[in-house]
Amino acid sequence: MFRSYTCGELRSTNINEEVTLAGWVQKSRDKGFMIWVDLRDRYGITQLIFDEERTPESVFNQAKTLGREYVVQVKGTVIERESKNKNIPTGAIEVLVSDIKILNEAETPPFTIEDNTDGGEDLRMKYRYLDIRRNPVKDKLVFRHKVAMEVRNYLSKEGFIEVETPYLIKSTPEGARDFVVPSRMNEGQFYALPQSPQTFKQLLMVGGLDKYFQIVKCFRDEDLRADRQPEFTQIDCEMAFVEQEDILNIFEGLTKYLLKEIKGVETEKFPRITYADAMRKYGNDKPDIRFGMEFGELNTVAQHKDFNVFNTSELVAGIAVPGAASYTRKEIDQLIDWVKRPQVGAKGMVYVKCNDDGTYKSSVDKFYDQEDLAKWAEKTGAKAGDLICVLSGNTNETRAQLSALRMELAERLGLRNAHEFAPLWVVDFPLLEWDEETERYHAMHHPFTSPKPEDLSLLESDPGKARANAYDLVLNGNEIGGGSIRIFDQELQSRMFSLLGFTKEEAEAQFGFLMNAFKYGAPPHGGIAFGFDRLVAILGGQETIRDYIAFPKNNAGRDVMIDAPAPIDDDQLKELCLKIDL
Amino acid sequence: MFRSYTCGELRSTNINEEVTLAGWVQKSRDKGFMIWVDLRDRYGITQLIFDEERTPESVFNQAKTLGREYVVQVKGTVIERESKNKNIPTGAIEVLVSDIKILNEAETPPFTIEDNTDGGEDLRMKYRYLDIRRNPVKDKLVFRHKVAMEVRNYLSKEGFIEVETPYLIKSTPEGARDFVVPSRMNEGQFYALPQSPQTFKQLLMVGGLDKYFQIVKCFRDEDLRADRQPEFTQIDCEMAFVEQEDILNIFEGLTKYLLKEIKGVETEKFPRITYADAMRKYGNDKPDIRFGMEFGELNTVAQHKDFNVFNTSELVAGIAVPGAASYTRKEIDQLIDWVKRPQVGAKGMVYVKCNDDGTYKSSVDKFYDQEDLAKWAEKTGAKAGDLICVLSGNTNETRAQLSALRMELAERLGLRNAHEFAPLWVVDFPLLEWDEETERYHAMHHPFTSPKPEDLSLLESDPGKARANAYDLVLNGNEIGGGSIRIFDQELQSRMFSLLGFTKEEAEAQFGFLMNAFKYGAPPHGGIAFGFDRLVAILGGQETIRDYIAFPKNNAGRDVMIDAPAPIDDDQLKELCLKIDL
Repeated sequence: MFRSYTCGELRSTNINEEVTLAGWVQKSRDKGFMIWVDLRDRYGITQLIFDEERTPESVFNQAKTLGREYVVQVKGTVIERESKNKNIPTGAIEVLVSDIKILNEAETPPFTIEDNTDGGEDLRMKYRYLDIRRNPVKDKLVFRHKVAMEVRNYLSKEGFIEVETPYLIKSTPEGARDFVVPSRMNEGQFYALPQSPQTFKQLLMVGGLDKYFQIVKCFRDEDLRADRQPEFTQIDCEMAFVEQEDILNIFEGLTKYLLKEIKGVETEKFPRITYADAMRKYGNDKPDIRFGMEFGELNTVAQHKDFNVFNTSELVAGIAVPGAASYTRKEIDQLIDWVKRPQVGAKGMVYVKCNDDGTYKSSVDKFYDQEDLAKWAEKTGAKAGDLICVLSGNTNETRAQLSALRMELAERLGLRNAHEFAPLWVVDFPLLEWDEETERYHAMHHPFTSPKPEDLSLLESDPGKARANAYDLVLNGNEIGGGSIRIFDQELQSRMFSLLGFTKEEAEAQFGFLMNAFKYGAPPHGGIAFGFDRLVAILGGQETIRDYIAFPKNNAGRDVMIDAPAPIDDDQLKELCLKIDL
Repeated sequence: MFRSYTCGELRSTNINEEVTLAGWVQKSRDKGFMIWVDLRDRYGITQLIFDEERTPESVFNQAKTLGREYVVQVKGTVIERESKNKNIPTGAIEVLVSDIKILNEAETPPFTIEDNTDGGEDLRMKYRYLDIRRNPVKDKLVFRHKVAMEVRNYLSKEGFIEVETPYLIKSTPEGARDFVVPSRMNEGQFYALPQSPQTFKQLLMVGGLDKYFQIVKCFRDEDLRADRQPEFTQIDCEMAFVEQEDILNIFEGLTKYLLKEIKGVETEKFPRITYADAMRKYGNDKPDIRFGMEFGELNTVAQHKDFNVFNTSELVAGIAVPGAASYTRKEIDQLIDWVKRPQVGAKGMVYVKCNDDGTYKSSVDKFYDQEDLAKWAEKTGAKAGDLICVLSGNTNETRAQLSALRMELAERLGLRNAHEFAPLWVVDFPLLEWDEETERYHAMHHPFTSPKPEDLSLLESDPGKARANAYDLVLNGNEIGGGSIRIFDQELQSRMFSLLGFTKEEAEAQFGFLMNAFKYGAPPHGGIAFGFDRLVAILGGQETIRDYIAFPKNNAGRDVMIDAPAPIDDDQLKELCLKIDL
């Protein structure tokens, strides 16, 4: 062992002890006759002191050569520190060094190894191994481990079995694009990396393992958006002999447990909202309910006057922005510009100031009187001092725009407190969504999702209206989990495949083994999958996942540290019977 | 919830309770006026009873239609069983059914869902989801989960952090063949799937996370031998600021903990043997030490007579087979035939019977007298009643042959008790091995393994003799883990690369990022990786890993259940800029 203590361990009680420490030189201060060195490891920082009078000369001279990030081992005596540092746990002591060994020298790192580094994102990614030395990154990785352990402990205690499903599976054209893996032993054939272990977990249910989970890597070859990774981690779960209610209860339990164990936060029973209500009230299927500003639909109280913009709109809706009646003209103009940005896409915005004296002042006073505006205030829940922002147009677009505005204002008003946790179940998702481009229905969740029994008849008459036994768990405006009760009846599954435009042959080729399995006694089952990277980030109070991943890829799917992907040898290609055809 | 109890839960204390159960029909016995059904789920079997007099007629009639593996839900009353079944925990009761719902019918499964099934290996693999319903397979998956949890609990308590390393990495020609993954976003370039997270865990050490572990899938595109899988699971571990002794202690602790927690077996301090001694005593670097039969080297006591076969041999060595002096001529001839099989490859075998009266009878009595043979007995540790088997020839071949014979005899003599655990550290492995084909040295462990400091000078004078700080953990004749102290000095690493025949450019292209990382202060570090599939199998008392894997692949690397790998669409190939070139 290179050390008798870590650099985060020594206290006043250790004074006079002979100790051995090892770690990295965080910084050194050379006062000529005295040198102080901050020695750092994973556990903390301990101050070393080299003293011309008390330290052997050769050791003192070596101490003079130490550069940042040198790796050293020292022996010495713990002594009381003259000027104590209350900011660090080891601040009461220092180690008077009697011997030193430089284990490894270090070039000057390309950025400072400090909590607030001078390194930009690109540089930090290229030298990720140095970035990990920084507390903010290191602590996130340790935090991730802790969350993973708690997830496993909870589910294991609940009788779930973690089963490893295969990574080399079969490509299915449905859904996102697969990463594929050429097989050398089966020429011209390919494995695919799993987008999720969906079919395998269903097969485990058929196999009688009625409570399955797995913390597992999944892969999607998508054009990457910011904060998406081609490989990501899921907490994948499935249960048999359960109904939707059972699944919501178990995984609400898991989430409560994590909030309690990890964050010390007690939560009430999670509220539930239907997809339809979520869209109506928040314009969004993953509403952030840490704050209000619910939508008020104003069609009945805004379409009776000569204001054509509203009269020709499918939806007129507004939100009451708390305390924003005091916004200046300039501030309001900026808001209007904000909603007109192409990323949001509104044509304009009507506003109403709710004055403290109970009167209203709006941008459409020409058309609407105080009585009209009072009704708007009622519908949006606006109080004196609030500002009502109103958008209008096509329903879906207006909702999306108003949702964006709501989130932006919440951000500006400081209503998105990272240390507050507002979980929410969104239920009754539509079963299908119409895809304009391919002119066919897509499964909103996936093709194995069960329609709600009461909506079964809609599958023939009006498929787009059918709701699914599908649910999302939303935390602070982020979907952290989603799942469904599965179809476990062969015939219903066949009907679903044909609704989704699969021919019998296509369905057979892609899902034959699952359909086949269903012939031998499939139990009712359902499940959920959590985006683990996202869950950890949100529990950690952050919105971006990248620093919770040890070695993330950039937006082009590259690992800039190891410089992958990269060309491979011609021999390798030949063995795989492949030619590159650019 | 479809059930108020599982099928393994009800006891006499539940008598008179109204219960709901769900599960699969294991079997039913129809006596006309009375029907008994064994209902099965993951947790056990409960006997249901349908009685013409006490069960509603419609329910009774439905019960008559139940086939094997039907999925049903029943309501009923727990009653005392007349003829109790002491073999199952629920054997004291049965459930008098008042209501039944057939949740799903089932075709007759292609093999019986019994502990001893009539299904052959191929059929069981094709219908793996049915195979998993069988206790022997299900129990192994549950067992695997339990081992994984205990591994994580132990390492987590010891301060290790589980860090997920990437799956989409970079291909390195060194070592086994990589599976590669074409990148769509980086045309003509490929990721590789990791053969192990080796370089990443070393980078984590450079990053200061001084105790890392991960239970992680790894991939090797090898021509499959029996009981090898293209994807397999490792417990991958690395520590910084440690010496070999520290690593052996920590992971001996893990192994002891598993044996205690999982098997209830207490073990002494694990014995250690050098690679050289293991080869000398057992002809094998993973000796099974549950039994003796250590090799006796006989050159000094067998090369002084006119027996040319021995006199021209590099090695003459024998083992004493306990109690085998009573073997008949026929039995011995069979043994000789066995060692002469091409898989073993010996040219013949000399034997000595150690008679109960202290005399010897050998197949080479023409050449050796009683005094000679007494010396052989001494060298091999043979006692009265034993049979000494002697092989000779080239040292390496003879050792391999004698090792095979030793294992075979132990098997025949019942000395390989699956419930006995004999762990062993093998240390001081050679650093390099000479490859006749490519006429260069290969790293015996991997190119990052540190030579023993005292053997550093041999790197110039006689590289093949240099020993490494490398170690294997052997359990019952299987290598369950292996690792090494790593080189953490750039210059030594460069020397290793050049010894291994890498040009500077090749080393830079493949390991540049690691070499680069070492410039910024690498701590001394080392690690170990356990083959998790194998470890679980051995703890489970089995030698084959396949049933400890939920969805294994066959020897051609195929998943016969999902029929993967498979051809992919031309569109997919085009997007990847690939052409198949058979």
